[in-house]
Amino acid sequence: MLGIALLGSGRMAHVYGPKINAHPGMRLVTIFNPNLQSAQRATADYGGKAENALDKVLADPDVDAIVIATPTDTHLEYVEACAKAGKPIYCEKPLDQSLERVDRCLNALAAHPVPFMLGFNRRFDPDNSALQAAVRNGDIGDLTFLMSWSREPAPPPIDYVRRSGGYFVDATIHDIDLLCWIAGEKPDEVYATGSCLFDPQIGQEGDVDATMTILKMPSGCMAHVNNSRSCAYGFDQRLEAFGRTGMLQTKNLRDDNLIRWDSDRTEAAMPLKHFFLERYDASFFHALDEFHKAIIEGRPPSSTAHDGRDALAIALACDRSRLEGRAIRPDYL
Amino acid sequence: MLGIALLGSGRMAHVYGPKINAHPGMRLVTIFNPNLQSAQRATADYGGKAENALDKVLADPDVDAIVIATPTDTHLEYVEACAKAGKPIYCEKPLDQSLERVDRCLNALAAHPVPFMLGFNRRFDPDNSALQAAVRNGDIGDLTFLMSWSREPAPPPIDYVRRSGGYFVDATIHDIDLLCWIAGEKPDEVYATGSCLFDPQIGQEGDVDATMTILKMPSGCMAHVNNSRSCAYGFDQRLEAFGRTGMLQTKNLRDDNLIRWDSDRTEAAMPLKHFFLERYDASFFHALDEFHKAIIEGRPPSSTAHDGRDALAIALACDRSRLEGRAIRPDYL
Amino acid sequence: MLGIALLGSGRMAHVYGPKINAHPGMRLVTIFNPNLQSAQRATADYGGKAENALDKVLADPDVDAIVIATPTDTHLEYVEACAKAGKPIYCEKPLDQSLERVDRCLNALAAHPVPFMLGFNRRFDPDNSALQAAVRNGDIGDLTFLMSWSREPAPPPIDYVRRSGGYFVDATIHDIDLLCWIAGEKPDEVYATGSCLFDPQIGQEGDVDATMTILKMPSGCMAHVNNSRSCAYGFDQRLEAFGRTGMLQTKNLRDDNLIRWDSDRTEAAMPLKHFFLERYDASFFHALDEFHKAIIEGRPPSSTAHDGRDALAIALACDRSRLEGRAIRPDYL
Amino acid sequence: MLGIALLGSGRMAHVYGPKINAHPGMRLVTIFNPNLQSAQRATADYGGKAENALDKVLADPDVDAIVIATPTDTHLEYVEACAKAGKPIYCEKPLDQSLERVDRCLNALAAHPVPFMLGFNRRFDPDNSALQAAVRNGDIGDLTFLMSWSREPAPPPIDYVRRSGGYFVDATIHDIDLLCWIAGEKPDEVYATGSCLFDPQIGQEGDVDATMTILKMPSGCMAHVNNSRSCAYGFDQRLEAFGRTGMLQTKNLRDDNLIRWDSDRTEAAMPLKHFFLERYDASFFHALDEFHKAIIEGRPPSSTAHDGRDALAIALACDRSRLEGRAIRPDYL
Repeated sequence: MLGIALLGSGRMAHVYGPKINAHPGMRLVTIFNPNLQSAQRATADYGGKAENALDKVLADPDVDAIVIATPTDTHLEYVEACAKAGKPIYCEKPLDQSLERVDRCLNALAAHPVPFMLGFNRRFDPDNSALQAAVRNGDIGDLTFLMSWSREPAPPPIDYVRRSGGYFVDATIHDIDLLCWIAGEKPDEVYATGSCLFDPQIGQEGDVDATMTILKMPSGCMAHVNNSRSCAYGFDQRLEAFGRTGMLQTKNLRDDNLIRWDSDRTEAAMPLKHFFLERYDASFFHALDEFHKAIIEGRPPSSTAHDGRDALAIALACDRSRLEGRAIRPDYL
Repeated sequence: MLGIALLGSGRMAHVYGPKINAHPGMRLVTIFNPNLQSAQRATADYGGKAENALDKVLADPDVDAIVIATPTDTHLEYVEACAKAGKPIYCEKPLDQSLERVDRCLNALAAHPVPFMLGFNRRFDPDNSALQAAVRNGDIGDLTFLMSWSREPAPPPIDYVRRSGGYFVDATIHDIDLLCWIAGEKPDEVYATGSCLFDPQIGQEGDVDATMTILKMPSGCMAHVNNSRSCAYGFDQRLEAFGRTGMLQTKNLRDDNLIRWDSDRTEAAMPLKHFFLERYDASFFHALDEFHKAIIEGRPPSSTAHDGRDALAIALACDRSRLEGRAIRPDYL
Repeated sequence: MLGIALLGSGRMAHVYGPKINAHPGMRLVTIFNPNLQSAQRATADYGGKAENALDKVLADPDVDAIVIATPTDTHLEYVEACAKAGKPIYCEKPLDQSLERVDRCLNALAAHPVPFMLGFNRRFDPDNSALQAAVRNGDIGDLTFLMSWSREPAPPPIDYVRRSGGYFVDATIHDIDLLCWIAGEKPDEVYATGSCLFDPQIGQEGDVDATMTILKMPSGCMAHVNNSRSCAYGFDQRLEAFGRTGMLQTKNLRDDNLIRWDSDRTEAAMPLKHFFLERYDASFFHALDEFHKAIIEGRPPSSTAHDGRDALAIALACDRSRLEGRAIRPDYL
Repeated sequence: MLGIALLGSGRMAHVYGPKINAHPGMRLVTIFNPNLQSAQRATADYGGKAENALDKVLADPDVDAIVIATPTDTHLEYVEACAKAGKPIYCEKPLDQSLERVDRCLNALAAHPVPFMLGFNRRFDPDNSALQAAVRNGDIGDLTFLMSWSREPAPPPIDYVRRSGGYFVDATIHDIDLLCWIAGEKPDEVYATGSCLFDPQIGQEGDVDATMTILKMPSGCMAHVNNSRSCAYGFDQRLEAFGRTGMLQTKNLRDDNLIRWDSDRTEAAMPLKHFFLERYDASFFHALDEFHKAIIEGRPPSSTAHDGRDALAIALACDRSRLEGRAIRPDYL
């Protein structure tokens, strides 16, 4: 039984709390928040002790591992502290929006090598992981094309956009990580372009709300991403992998699998009403489970801090490509 | 080039006229109707001579074969005359609504053995014939279940219902012929039940507008038919064949193959707006082509007068089963 | 928190044990088996006390409700004892294979009216319940046709067949319950036919391994069931509801939602490798949850002992119809 | 009845010959080829006079319009001659592989303004034209993304590749024309990248056999094309249009619409065994019909010489983008 301290008691903590409780090999020991009242409200829901002193959390012998679900700009500080304390770390993505601060995380982890897992939860969606496994298994031969669709139901509040690091760093980074993970390689160069078609305020911030991106891999495989901040029929999430001997596609997950026929439309499904917390609900559990398994089996978790750095470098290159109108080589380590 | 005399200039003649013209091995020589003006209106559209004397048509050396597309109650008279004249006959189904009159047709054809084809056009629909070919080829092994859906967009006029011979003889007979043809056998016994759920006038005539039927084959294979005189989303036509090693299904044909996603319905197609003349348009051409090929190749056409008698005997047994509440053995020859 | 005593420690108990543990409003207090060692092996997996004396279980003040997951022929005895003890009962279906013994259960429950739920778990499958809710909500208008497909991957051992009560009582009873529940009515009469096409031993027992059934409802709605003890592509479970204004269909659930294209087959899914425990895994949890909710809310559970008697009466009528070749009125109370 | 002279008696002439004959408003007057024997072999199949002197063809009063189906490098000469003779022209695409020679065509047509139609047949595929009509009709609101998949079953002979003008000019040009026609605008700039993954000989020629392309439209709409010279499951042709209020997709056309289930794969279709002549067979007829209608109605055909120039300019810009690694503005007039 792994004793878990959950750092944070905001939105993502409310995602992880019930999943830690549901995991047969984990128990929630502590919920930490500098604001003790917030931590106490979360422990009322999920159990465990509320705590607002991080050193006490890290000194607690019942705490075997840490799940960081705090705001992005605090990740660096907490990763450094937890690594120094020798605690295995699961950190909600992104590590940080700045390559320089991500590199400080990597340095801290190099100095204090604890098991570390970055929460790229979409890898752990059952359909995404089935597709990746089939590709890595050679089911469709060498890859020619990979494609990822990620279209959000509606634009976020403009304050969120301002703090997001830009659309590529905020959203495309998920597709980038998935595609590199499926391909088993990372792009030599990327090209991206974008438009502001849905919310003029986003354009006024210098950002875009619809993008197309191409990643060119060393093997010659090409990957395409299209992202949109608005989608009339809901949260559209699809993958397509085209290889020498076949093709694999994922479909959107649905609330129910009813097929509807009437005088207006036939063989129809309902719109995709869920957003990412519901759509990827199972993936958060499977991600925690990978963290648990890696610790138990004494091996590094499969989604690493370096994967996070690579995805960020690629997303930043996309942004630069959009501004410069040319293919850009990401700034890898 | 086969010279064709088309008997009839009503609705079905307007189906066959253009198809005879489009067939590279047929030419339309004559259109016959006792009402000469009606025949002339049809020749204005499709060419050929208009004629109201059947003996002249049958004596014309340019007439190599006959297509009978007249009202059902005239089929017997014309088949007898054409057979006596030694002309190959394509006759629109049904031969007749009465087993006794069908048997007179069979006797006439036995006395004057000309190539004879009954126009069970749905066999010649490309998807239906692909399914039959796959089943006969053993693609799914010995059959366990066959299922046929045939639901019409809207009830016909009550006058049509009165003259129809009842729902089983009018409509289920198509499914019966298809299923026996696919199975390669005809049922030992049938059970059918029905309701009047759409048009109370149909019930007042003692008929039904929704039925379920089971055909039990000598091999043990069971076939199900469901028929409805009304269908909110259009003309629904499907088959399913379940065998020892697999299953085959046909889908509805559509005007276009667009898949539509919007805020109401996703992955949707449009309703099935066509009725049988449009839905089975290609099948009439392929049926004529089988007639043509059989004559050229000197072999009997694949859809015979006996097939028509069998289907009628089964449909009549369904009607009796509905009234008696028990399985009935059809009155085969 | 409802304290649960689980009667039985065989296969079905291993289905319910983990689901009781996973339910936030239930805790497993006791596992009962006359064979104490078997009960102890189960408590090693799921916790709780092992017990082999039923009176002690029923006297335990920590036991708020009973889940009966013992062999069918013991249900009557345990239901009578639990009802007498005033404990709410969830009983795995069927209540019994004999109408006479089912009626004794009903009498016991009438004499000692405790909350009682029969485990017709397939109602609680998310897709089945979404279809039922849509139908009851009038989404497709008055029903014309209902259809249920239930085809099993492979025939059971012949010993199982011998004790099964016949194919209709063993298997069709599930489809019967679903269809009556969806339709909101039970049939005036039923017709069924069957064949032995897969396992000749089943035929030697006088039973069949493939059946087609029609249920005729008082409203005129007709329901079709097809059942098969063998299915080349796995466990095929589908429903179709056709009403005045539209149609609803359920699709088979799958392990993954990948669509596969290669040089042999395109747009393909994998076979349906699961059998009922995996396919309906979620439904057992949802069924327990309904039991829990009904107790908490002080209302009768939605799946009643009378529903079980009706389904059995209908299944027995199917069997008789098969033997007599005519429509049979079920022996309702 | 429009008298047609068909220039050419090679592969494309064998596509157009039967379609001219099948068109109720056209008759084939002449087949021209400088090699008279080749023309005679074609007239043996399709009728009409064989001719090897173009001036005689153009002087023939029975010739109302010209269909040019000769090798690409002869188009310019024949277009100039036919325009000078005042004959309406249908010209197989591309006009030419060189912008300079295309401009000479445009000049000839400006000097002698005859009805001119470029044979962008894929616009006339029923599903493509249904999608375009729905988009132009506003069914999905302002466009955000357009996507086109065009994957060929197998690489062409290397001699074909050498004469093809490169993969973008040879193949992507089709997708480019479709996407601009659907969008109703042409790109400000394009980015393209490619790999040689299937046939190393293609790489040795400096060409690629797999490409990804992005077209950025003035409205902000972005279009993606992926092309491959090889595809394990056949000739894959799909479109997706994503707009403010919905999405439209086309599916691949198939030989039959059977859905196959067995122990290997379920809900499967067969591979897409056809290549473009079979897949787009109907589109050639519909394209000729548009040519016919435009002449009869006295309006310009919908697929113009300028459309051909635009598509070529865009394809050439794609090629340059691939070599220079940056977005390129096409060289429009």
